[in-house]
Amino acid sequence: MRAVDVIARKRDGLALSKDEIEWFIAAYTQGDVPDYQASAFLMAVFLRGMTREETVNLTLAMAHSGDILDLSDIIPYAVDKHSSGGVGDKTTLVVLPLVAACGVRVAKMSGRGLGFSGGTLDKMEAIAGYNANLTESEFRVAIGKTGLVLAGQTRELAPADGKLYALRDVTATVPSLPLIAGSIMSKKIAAGANGIVLDVKAGRGAFMNTVEDARELAQIMVDIGVDAGRDMIAVISDMNQPLGVAVGNALEVMEAIETLQGGGAADFREHCLHVAAYMLQLAGQGAKWTDTDAARELLEQHLQDGAALSKFKEMVVGQGGDVRMVDNPALLPQASLVEEVTASQSGYIAQVAADQIGIAASELGAGREKKGDPIDLAVGLKVYVKVGDSMPAGAPLATIYANDAAKLAACRERVMGAITYSATPVEPLPLFYGTIHGK
Amino acid sequence: MRAVDVIARKRDGLALSKDEIEWFIAAYTQGDVPDYQASAFLMAVFLRGMTREETVNLTLAMAHSGDILDLSDIIPYAVDKHSSGGVGDKTTLVVLPLVAACGVRVAKMSGRGLGFSGGTLDKMEAIAGYNANLTESEFRVAIGKTGLVLAGQTRELAPADGKLYALRDVTATVPSLPLIAGSIMSKKIAAGANGIVLDVKAGRGAFMNTVEDARELAQIMVDIGVDAGRDMIAVISDMNQPLGVAVGNALEVMEAIETLQGGGAADFREHCLHVAAYMLQLAGQGAKWTDTDAARELLEQHLQDGAALSKFKEMVVGQGGDVRMVDNPALLPQASLVEEVTASQSGYIAQVAADQIGIAASELGAGREKKGDPIDLAVGLKVYVKVGDSMPAGAPLATIYANDAAKLAACRERVMGAITYSATPVEPLPLFYGTIHGK
Repeated sequence: MRAVDVIARKRDGLALSKDEIEWFIAAYTQGDVPDYQASAFLMAVFLRGMTREETVNLTLAMAHSGDILDLSDIIPYAVDKHSSGGVGDKTTLVVLPLVAACGVRVAKMSGRGLGFSGGTLDKMEAIAGYNANLTESEFRVAIGKTGLVLAGQTRELAPADGKLYALRDVTATVPSLPLIAGSIMSKKIAAGANGIVLDVKAGRGAFMNTVEDARELAQIMVDIGVDAGRDMIAVISDMNQPLGVAVGNALEVMEAIETLQGGGAADFREHCLHVAAYMLQLAGQGAKWTDTDAARELLEQHLQDGAALSKFKEMVVGQGGDVRMVDNPALLPQASLVEEVTASQSGYIAQVAADQIGIAASELGAGREKKGDPIDLAVGLKVYVKVGDSMPAGAPLATIYANDAAKLAACRERVMGAITYSATPVEPLPLFYGTIHGK
Repeated sequence: MRAVDVIARKRDGLALSKDEIEWFIAAYTQGDVPDYQASAFLMAVFLRGMTREETVNLTLAMAHSGDILDLSDIIPYAVDKHSSGGVGDKTTLVVLPLVAACGVRVAKMSGRGLGFSGGTLDKMEAIAGYNANLTESEFRVAIGKTGLVLAGQTRELAPADGKLYALRDVTATVPSLPLIAGSIMSKKIAAGANGIVLDVKAGRGAFMNTVEDARELAQIMVDIGVDAGRDMIAVISDMNQPLGVAVGNALEVMEAIETLQGGGAADFREHCLHVAAYMLQLAGQGAKWTDTDAARELLEQHLQDGAALSKFKEMVVGQGGDVRMVDNPALLPQASLVEEVTASQSGYIAQVAADQIGIAASELGAGREKKGDPIDLAVGLKVYVKVGDSMPAGAPLATIYANDAAKLAACRERVMGAITYSATPVEPLPLFYGTIHGK
């Protein structure tokens, strides 16, 4: 087989065979197909698209370009979740211990933040000593001990995806649905998941700006999972405004702890319960938790009775974190400058632009521009208002946590620009736009 | 400017500005833009196309990626010709001395053959001692002495095109009209041509299989030339059957000599007169040879009176070739095995498949699979029949000149397959399908 012939077929809009895709991905991973051929291939895929079958074959070829993690000896049915990334999305920190508190072992590999999207590992590292870089044997030991582990990849999963992703970034071939879906799903499949709950965000603070685009991406990922023999549920959730109140690493850990204590912002709590219920449903595989009301009841109970919080603390201890910071969040990294932003006028909140809030937090130092940049764990914002809220002038809208006066001033400007008002009532935004069940 | 942004704009079907194209080509030539970005760009151009303005800007950017040859001190108006490549196309060997015999200085840089298309320099090197690799000063001296020179590039012209062409070859981005047109025209412009006659072949033995495609390519190249301030004429000529009789290097030199002696195949002679008349028209720039009948008369006269042949001999001598081979073509490289192919049935000739004849000659050793392969100057074919000819069974169709019995047998098979018959009369193929004049 010759790479140039595979490229030409995709260029001409033909569907590639399983053999062609497997050969191309394997040859690229081994370095037999150079980057300049892979990038022409990627642009042809971008402009010509891929059928469902091609997308599945691409995903599986990438998933099998390295080892597939097999934890079946310690987790009979591995349930995983994936969020497409958003602002204030600390869902994993709550959902994982909550599901584990229901007796389901959960082992999750997460990533770090980039741009204005936060990363779960960065957040966890706000807890002093927390070790997100486990070896595979440490990872396995942690599951055996607490039934719960949250860390980075123990080794490179789906190395073809790693290579292709880096290439897409510099060849303007990132925003392609089959390539995005293949990238996400290849890593989930390589991580050994049996069932996956996808949280695909839609809105100005998400990768997919419209509900239609998010739904299309979600459907492709569900299709891939189903064709690859996985149980799949995808929720389409709103990301026009931040999720919950806190945006920033230590601040989000605090909000997660509050939620695990039975409190926290209503929208975030509801989001967590929704995602966790689907994880239980998959983990029960249609038996134990088919009664979703009962599952929901159990989950709410474990937020109230401290079982979920206990699991979280077990995980922190198991991965070397300072559990006193969970008991007393005041010990978490604190910003030196704290300033309130108040409403400049009265009215109904028309917009809390998630992308602008995300950029504001990132500019304070909470996020990174490019891989490897250092971040400031203490800084960020709390944004108290949601679209539809009625606010009197002078009411508190947000609090900024900064370590630099100039950055604080810039952040204040950006936050004030991100929040707009209406004289007439505004409909609140929904939390979810729908659910796709893999059949 | 960032390469990824330029790629993204082309990917989205937007027209690139002059600045963007110039920046991209300059950065690629210098190695600041890597191959993997250029190949994504090429695929985006392939699938999204380019406007006339973009194509002109791309061509000029490639032309100016190296030095522009300036011969204006010795050739006040440089007229050039370009053939898109075909089977049996030895036109340059006749047209150049013929035009020079009319008092027009001609300095042409030609190339070598690849695949089943022959190359002018390979043919000339059938004459022992002929030096096609001149330095620029040798090139200039030759023009001054004889008013005629035919050699390879004295230095790399349009280096961006050289780099991009190599990349297109391995990324399935060769057959793109703006890229093909840009590649050809950038080299012609860099070679300093003021007026260019393009011979764009159409048919199964040509790069463009249909007249429509050939006409479209010709029009784009004429447009580029006009926008770049060049005088342009393009002819669309047939390449469904070979041009003339001989296919193969020494055999084609012999046919060229016959034609320069006033003989030769009628179709080839007519093709040469047609192209030469347009070259004279451009060289006269609307004055001296506007009377095309008079130009034509002068050209025919110089084929008959030996003036064109004398010029050819002057050129051969000037470039170190053994002129005795011109006077006595029997001294040219001779094949050891010569065999006739006769008609297996009577009938009208329905097809003489140029591509198959070209492959047959190439498989005998006359052509090369890839750049740098050695070739056998002696081998090839003479094909005596043209579409529409009425042939009795047993009449000679072709003669094969080989140096290997197995190759000869394979060639015979291929030639017999390439020629098909009809019981009813068949229309002869036209020599030309039209002309495009640059305005």
